[in-house]
Amino acid sequence: MPLSTDQQSEIDQARAGAQATLRPIAAALEEVLFQALPVLDHGFVRVVDYMGDDAAVVQAARVSYGRGTKKVSEDRGLINYLMRHRHTTPFEMCEIKYHVKLPIFVARQWIRHRTANVNEYSARYSILDNEFYVPKPEHLAAQSRLNRQGRDAVLGGKEAERVFDLLKQDAERVYEHYMEMLNEGEDGQPLDPGRSGLARELARMNLSLGFYTQWYWKTNLHNLMHFLSLRADAHAQYEIRAYAEVMVDTLRRWCPICHDAFMEYRLGGAHLSKTGLAAVKLMIAGEKVDQKSSGLNPREWRELMAALGLG
Amino acid sequence: MPLSTDQQSEIDQARAGAQATLRPIAAALEEVLFQALPVLDHGFVRVVDYMGDDAAVVQAARVSYGRGTKKVSEDRGLINYLMRHRHTTPFEMCEIKYHVKLPIFVARQWIRHRTANVNEYSARYSILDNEFYVPKPEHLAAQSRLNRQGRDAVLGGKEAERVFDLLKQDAERVYEHYMEMLNEGEDGQPLDPGRSGLARELARMNLSLGFYTQWYWKTNLHNLMHFLSLRADAHAQYEIRAYAEVMVDTLRRWCPICHDAFMEYRLGGAHLSKTGLAAVKLMIAGEKVDQKSSGLNPREWRELMAALGLG
Amino acid sequence: MPLSTDQQSEIDQARAGAQATLRPIAAALEEVLFQALPVLDHGFVRVVDYMGDDAAVVQAARVSYGRGTKKVSEDRGLINYLMRHRHTTPFEMCEIKYHVKLPIFVARQWIRHRTANVNEYSARYSILDNEFYVPKPEHLAAQSRLNRQGRDAVLGGKEAERVFDLLKQDAERVYEHYMEMLNEGEDGQPLDPGRSGLARELARMNLSLGFYTQWYWKTNLHNLMHFLSLRADAHAQYEIRAYAEVMVDTLRRWCPICHDAFMEYRLGGAHLSKTGLAAVKLMIAGEKVDQKSSGLNPREWRELMAALGLG
Amino acid sequence: MPLSTDQQSEIDQARAGAQATLRPIAAALEEVLFQALPVLDHGFVRVVDYMGDDAAVVQAARVSYGRGTKKVSEDRGLINYLMRHRHTTPFEMCEIKYHVKLPIFVARQWIRHRTANVNEYSARYSILDNEFYVPKPEHLAAQSRLNRQGRDAVLGGKEAERVFDLLKQDAERVYEHYMEMLNEGEDGQPLDPGRSGLARELARMNLSLGFYTQWYWKTNLHNLMHFLSLRADAHAQYEIRAYAEVMVDTLRRWCPICHDAFMEYRLGGAHLSKTGLAAVKLMIAGEKVDQKSSGLNPREWRELMAALGLG
Repeated sequence: MPLSTDQQSEIDQARAGAQATLRPIAAALEEVLFQALPVLDHGFVRVVDYMGDDAAVVQAARVSYGRGTKKVSEDRGLINYLMRHRHTTPFEMCEIKYHVKLPIFVARQWIRHRTANVNEYSARYSILDNEFYVPKPEHLAAQSRLNRQGRDAVLGGKEAERVFDLLKQDAERVYEHYMEMLNEGEDGQPLDPGRSGLARELARMNLSLGFYTQWYWKTNLHNLMHFLSLRADAHAQYEIRAYAEVMVDTLRRWCPICHDAFMEYRLGGAHLSKTGLAAVKLMIAGEKVDQKSSGLNPREWRELMAALGLG
Repeated sequence: MPLSTDQQSEIDQARAGAQATLRPIAAALEEVLFQALPVLDHGFVRVVDYMGDDAAVVQAARVSYGRGTKKVSEDRGLINYLMRHRHTTPFEMCEIKYHVKLPIFVARQWIRHRTANVNEYSARYSILDNEFYVPKPEHLAAQSRLNRQGRDAVLGGKEAERVFDLLKQDAERVYEHYMEMLNEGEDGQPLDPGRSGLARELARMNLSLGFYTQWYWKTNLHNLMHFLSLRADAHAQYEIRAYAEVMVDTLRRWCPICHDAFMEYRLGGAHLSKTGLAAVKLMIAGEKVDQKSSGLNPREWRELMAALGLG
Repeated sequence: MPLSTDQQSEIDQARAGAQATLRPIAAALEEVLFQALPVLDHGFVRVVDYMGDDAAVVQAARVSYGRGTKKVSEDRGLINYLMRHRHTTPFEMCEIKYHVKLPIFVARQWIRHRTANVNEYSARYSILDNEFYVPKPEHLAAQSRLNRQGRDAVLGGKEAERVFDLLKQDAERVYEHYMEMLNEGEDGQPLDPGRSGLARELARMNLSLGFYTQWYWKTNLHNLMHFLSLRADAHAQYEIRAYAEVMVDTLRRWCPICHDAFMEYRLGGAHLSKTGLAAVKLMIAGEKVDQKSSGLNPREWRELMAALGLG
Repeated sequence: MPLSTDQQSEIDQARAGAQATLRPIAAALEEVLFQALPVLDHGFVRVVDYMGDDAAVVQAARVSYGRGTKKVSEDRGLINYLMRHRHTTPFEMCEIKYHVKLPIFVARQWIRHRTANVNEYSARYSILDNEFYVPKPEHLAAQSRLNRQGRDAVLGGKEAERVFDLLKQDAERVYEHYMEMLNEGEDGQPLDPGRSGLARELARMNLSLGFYTQWYWKTNLHNLMHFLSLRADAHAQYEIRAYAEVMVDTLRRWCPICHDAFMEYRLGGAHLSKTGLAAVKLMIAGEKVDQKSSGLNPREWRELMAALGLG
């Protein structure tokens, strides 16, 4: 489990202190507020704050003075309409803040989403913990031969064993040398009082991309859904998808109506190209269409067939 | 006062419903939450939601697990340090949402700050109210002769009277014609059942820039302070400054330590150029410096003298 | 035509001075560079600078050292792939800068796209020209009864005449009073040497939203296509669509392969929801589906039928 | 030197092909266009494209139709004014694109500047080269005891030797194991035809933060100067500062007037707090001020003394 006793007690303390507010609250999200939801072997996602709820989206779309007395069903209709017609600004009126612990190589993918606010733990200023990611055997996949950016079947037997050994041994060794260069013992005392220790901002470069870092990450509901639509997608690397899936669940607790609209119109739907749409029209008219006659290239054709469940 | 009875009752209702939350709260801001703080003749600023407080800035800077047990004085020291050294990301971890009613020409200046989320009342979809801005006599300033972007003394006597007459008469006339083109009576019934009425998205172009619009505007604490540093500044047009000043007060209620740091390091300070700094060094050494010997041009010299209170 | 002799001569002069560069050039775009492409009655779009071309998108996607020796057909394949799979960052590597003259109400819609750089002509600093938009008779549409955000049939006869009269008379009057308040004659001399003239930043509020403003507007290729996908769409207000359509043509001249991919995968395609996709699968399987059995609401069903050409 | 023969020949080829353009050009920047300007032991900065020049800033500020016939001295005056008064939007009208090769830990600092466009070489898709950063002896600094985020004197003798050994040995070993896990030989053939090889997206996590990556990075002139003001500053880590300094030189070649204004008003100046400004006023008036009487805390007092050259 990723938390020390001190950390867990800080979280428990924060969860103990309810106060009164006039702001809208999301009860189901309050239930898990501050709690570390585990991801991968040492990581977590914690919601540490939020602003707004489903009704706040509706309020912003209407530029209204109060919460209104509208029915939930009307809110749902409006939210579905906004989502379908890409009226994105009302979704920007809700905000959520996460504390995330994640391997550095995942952080490097994640940070490419620029429309968020980030404070990362500084390895220039502090010393990183000795925690690194090792995939579970079922995620130790071979390089795909078809898709240069994908995975194939899981490695097995001796090859898997060898990979586990290399990952662990190298991580342990680079961490040991990191501490030696810093001249830091595990007890916080210098290993050798006669040495100065290398600057932290330099020593960190000996650590590998599997080590865990952590950050505060804050974004609005629209950008969160955009992030999730890309990172909870089957094309995303498994390790970042593991985070995205936990976050989809926090979305459901926070804004359940927006969550449903997101599943219906974004994650669950399909985008057809002009040529793909023409092919679908022919198919509905009962005509026979194959890749050649469709005008799509083989890869696009395969993608269309997959979307239509005709693969 | 800018609110109808319905609007005020919606606000009262929202203020009636306190609920429990585990999130940090800003008690002084809760006191005015949802309330319409008046600005200009028909405008207002209302805080409709917020996320975070002073401690949340500190928490993000430390990437910490809980609220911590640090003293307020330590928080203040860290916040001052962050502000002084332009470590802006922790300030991005707090967010505030306003409902603002403002003249369209003010909205056009305001919207130039892009790092915010906005939902504006749609004159494509709805009908604008018959409310337009007329300056108070003490703000009816003449064009500055020195500064093409500034104001001079206040207009008086007949010239002022004439301006008031023109502003009011034109606004009343364009609104009347707006309603006529829409074929809308004040009772919501068509003026003439035999006419269709011009599309709202077209009719609106007859309204002038002094009419009021309204929007939800949400931004983070860092961007709010940047906005305020430009718009609460003496160089800003009076009408937008009137909004900024009310917002500075909401900042004080929300995050009092950040507010103080903002007044000390941003609004209250001065930026010296390389040449200006060299001149100041000479002055401190007791040497006589004038515009020529300073190397500054006349305008920069005047600005420096003003900053040093030597004007 | 929107240009004065001086303005046209400035443009002609700029078009006269070709120079050598090592940067990629877009020959078809150079042909119209700086030229004012007319839009509406007094507006225009001018491309004033650009950076990159189709190959620059490919180069960025490959992080390559040179222009490469790849064939155009490979570039097209890669660009189509990037567009289809929402790999948007390579499209951000090209940039274009426009000078646009447009009615203020159009500018207010346009500015909602925040991911662009803007410098607008300042009515705080300068005096606006006496030019305002009057729709052509074929665009003088009635308010739609079905869609609060849409237009219906064109107004005719006396109603149209009356609207034209009101629009013109009001615009002429507010401009005349604007100049009177400024105390500015058409010759640049004060109307009355004994008066001060109202500050420009105040007088401007008497102008209506149909007056023309102008700005420099710069954005990258990805954001341009996003803008065009929303503003060249049939749901956009006609007046902004008129600008978007001219800009689609500049896109074609600038990056023809990206333009084709944009037409194929964005403008020409359709997005199906999860439920909509399920209905399409049934239709392809030859089953009879109607609105009720589809699970879509009536409005969504109409939208799906329209997308499939079955309306 | 960081380039292979193929890479250098791609660059040479790109530099061979001048073409005619109507766009503004920056002659001094064209001289080094595409060339790899070396940074650190294996890194470089290459300008691969640009848009605009000093005059383009002026043009945007004036929203003008042509290049104008203004004198350079007037352009300089206006640019200085814009810089001094934080009128930042005209600087956003110029754009520059770099190709940068840099250690991953530097990339992780750099990417925190979000207002830029980035395409990074994908270690998910491709195999990283065997190149890692080793500091020169004069940059192998000890951890500062005063400033947790700073460096102290250079390590010497045996301690330095040991650090070099560890950095090199660990980097060589993790790279060797990276290739072994990938089952990749240096010749591009599998090391062992009987094995599958681990997916690239997983194997990369064995590499350490000292390895080089590369990206295309594009930003506008305003954001570039903001980046440089933070990263060419003495508080920045040496390794990123080394990049920033080379980029300051490209700024000088590109927009020399803006460069000078940047040095005068940003890099070369000083910001005084309200209390610091009050102390300076007293000093100029000939009064004796010390830390206590100034009202500044000791650290702020030291910073003020340093800015005034009175340290």
